[in-house]
Amino acid sequence: MPQNLVFTNDVASALDQILDAKPHNRLAVIVDENTQRLVLPAVKSRHLADAHVITIKAGDSHKNLSTLTQVWEGLEEAGATRRSVVVNLGGGVVTDLGGFAAATFKRGIDFINIPTTLLSAVDAAVGGKTGINFGGLKNEIGYFREASDVIISTCFLATLSIEELKSGYAEMLKHGMLSSHDEFCRLIAYDFQNADAEQLLELLRTSVLVKERIVKEDPHEKGIRRALNLGHTVGHAFESKALHDGKPIAHGYAVAWGMVAEMVLSHNILGFPSQDLHRLADFVHANYGAFHITCDDYDALLALMHHDKKSQSGEINCTLLAACGDVRPGHVISDDEMRIALDLYRDLMHI
Amino acid sequence: MPQNLVFTNDVASALDQILDAKPHNRLAVIVDENTQRLVLPAVKSRHLADAHVITIKAGDSHKNLSTLTQVWEGLEEAGATRRSVVVNLGGGVVTDLGGFAAATFKRGIDFINIPTTLLSAVDAAVGGKTGINFGGLKNEIGYFREASDVIISTCFLATLSIEELKSGYAEMLKHGMLSSHDEFCRLIAYDFQNADAEQLLELLRTSVLVKERIVKEDPHEKGIRRALNLGHTVGHAFESKALHDGKPIAHGYAVAWGMVAEMVLSHNILGFPSQDLHRLADFVHANYGAFHITCDDYDALLALMHHDKKSQSGEINCTLLAACGDVRPGHVISDDEMRIALDLYRDLMHI
Repeated sequence: MPQNLVFTNDVASALDQILDAKPHNRLAVIVDENTQRLVLPAVKSRHLADAHVITIKAGDSHKNLSTLTQVWEGLEEAGATRRSVVVNLGGGVVTDLGGFAAATFKRGIDFINIPTTLLSAVDAAVGGKTGINFGGLKNEIGYFREASDVIISTCFLATLSIEELKSGYAEMLKHGMLSSHDEFCRLIAYDFQNADAEQLLELLRTSVLVKERIVKEDPHEKGIRRALNLGHTVGHAFESKALHDGKPIAHGYAVAWGMVAEMVLSHNILGFPSQDLHRLADFVHANYGAFHITCDDYDALLALMHHDKKSQSGEINCTLLAACGDVRPGHVISDDEMRIALDLYRDLMHI
Repeated sequence: MPQNLVFTNDVASALDQILDAKPHNRLAVIVDENTQRLVLPAVKSRHLADAHVITIKAGDSHKNLSTLTQVWEGLEEAGATRRSVVVNLGGGVVTDLGGFAAATFKRGIDFINIPTTLLSAVDAAVGGKTGINFGGLKNEIGYFREASDVIISTCFLATLSIEELKSGYAEMLKHGMLSSHDEFCRLIAYDFQNADAEQLLELLRTSVLVKERIVKEDPHEKGIRRALNLGHTVGHAFESKALHDGKPIAHGYAVAWGMVAEMVLSHNILGFPSQDLHRLADFVHANYGAFHITCDDYDALLALMHHDKKSQSGEINCTLLAACGDVRPGHVISDDEMRIALDLYRDLMHI
């Protein structure tokens, strides 16, 4: 059955309508400490009022086997059967871990995602990636399984920090660049830091549909889905370096900076328009600042890129754009090309 | 991609042929203490010689989260990536747990099943059920994911106890009854306790293909796949009672006895031929003896049947046969009907 995506800021009604039409004998809702406090009481759903609540600790460090075990035990306590339903109400940790717990409980029960962060709405809640971190590696254990329904809203965004908002918007920007020049222009012109919930929901709808289209073409990430890694080869290297230096950065920021470096590559290799490269760089610099690197960091960054888990052969692999909307996944990048791109990234970021 | 089933007693060549055609960067083989000692050295495969071996403890009590964690860690130690392959070489515990570990490692890597017991060949290795026991419940956590290839042989059966052989043959008998009257007659006429490996492989091929056909029609057990529960409603109750009494019985024996009781129901409700009922009962009695129950046990057995995990509503639900090959899944059985069936089961088993 195709995934049912609902875009609305009346989350309670949407959820009740979905659950009315879905026969089930038990309902469990998975929240973290934050969404239990800030979001759950605000969703005035008939069904949720009677649900068994499973609360997990907030934060990526708790996206682990111990929390997963807690959720499986919670589902047993709830008396969940194959005819039960799980609602994941939270950010990416809740939707990833809760989705995996549901997908594996009694060999799989239905789950509904209600992402409460911009990042999880645009990224983690759609596309069927579920999982946990394991053995020190991110998302090492997991599965591809889509939520039966996803309710996407912007009404919880007031509960987010500005950093969380920006992190999510960077992924929207990525989808915009994958989609078309018009969409790219629309996104960099929008004052997202002072967003109106309904306007932002419209932008979010367009953005999520870009991802949905790509995922549908390639559910198990064998080909075109790698387009969604735009900005991520360099971004992951920045993220890992920052973590290693004891100064972790938010994922979306890393992607924003990574996109600048990868659009430099796109310009140098495929002729991505210089004007768009500069507009992107200015937008990123104005909203995200810069990730500071020097030439002395290049060797370490290149080593990280060679070991990226998306790399199958040890080569540096990037999705590039010939223009916004003209996507070319799977480019092998030489060390020299990457060094030049990092030089120009530093120029564009005024480092 | 459809599952590739290979029937052969030259397991090493079959495996090498499969792996030659499957590009992969690492190979891990999962065995238990028994198959590591008795089977692994006997499979003279080029590929297996270089494989990373992960050895788990033998027995259903080790089909748990702790062993699963050990296998995930073993895959990390092996340097497994999405392009790696897992070979499960063992009985149902190895194929169920190893399959689940592979299905969830980095969101799923290919695995090949080489069942080494008759029961796992006929039952667990085909059909995509993977999983572990959790919270005291069997197969509570798991997933539907098929092995890419299954190599089915009878050459390891000499490593089995007579009890293991009988347990597997009961499931073959079940498939025969689901399939046709001819197949039923062929199976009860065969001297399986003194089986020739090649003859038994032919019977096994027919039996596995019955299951494969049913699973293909209904991969997620929403309808006709419940036919495979023939004998299991009563069988599970016998198994649970025996476990509770501290005298556990093998699963296949429980199914054999359960089939007798359920064919009594089939006779009483759908007119399953009396002659076949008696032939089945005589075969089961001669080869499996009887599970001893008295009228005093009926209440406890009925309670167990009402709580069977396949039951969605608390009603007793059985797959019945109007005749061999004429399958009627999803019959609701009243307590009175079941009491009468248990009475006749005792008569037929000379209790």
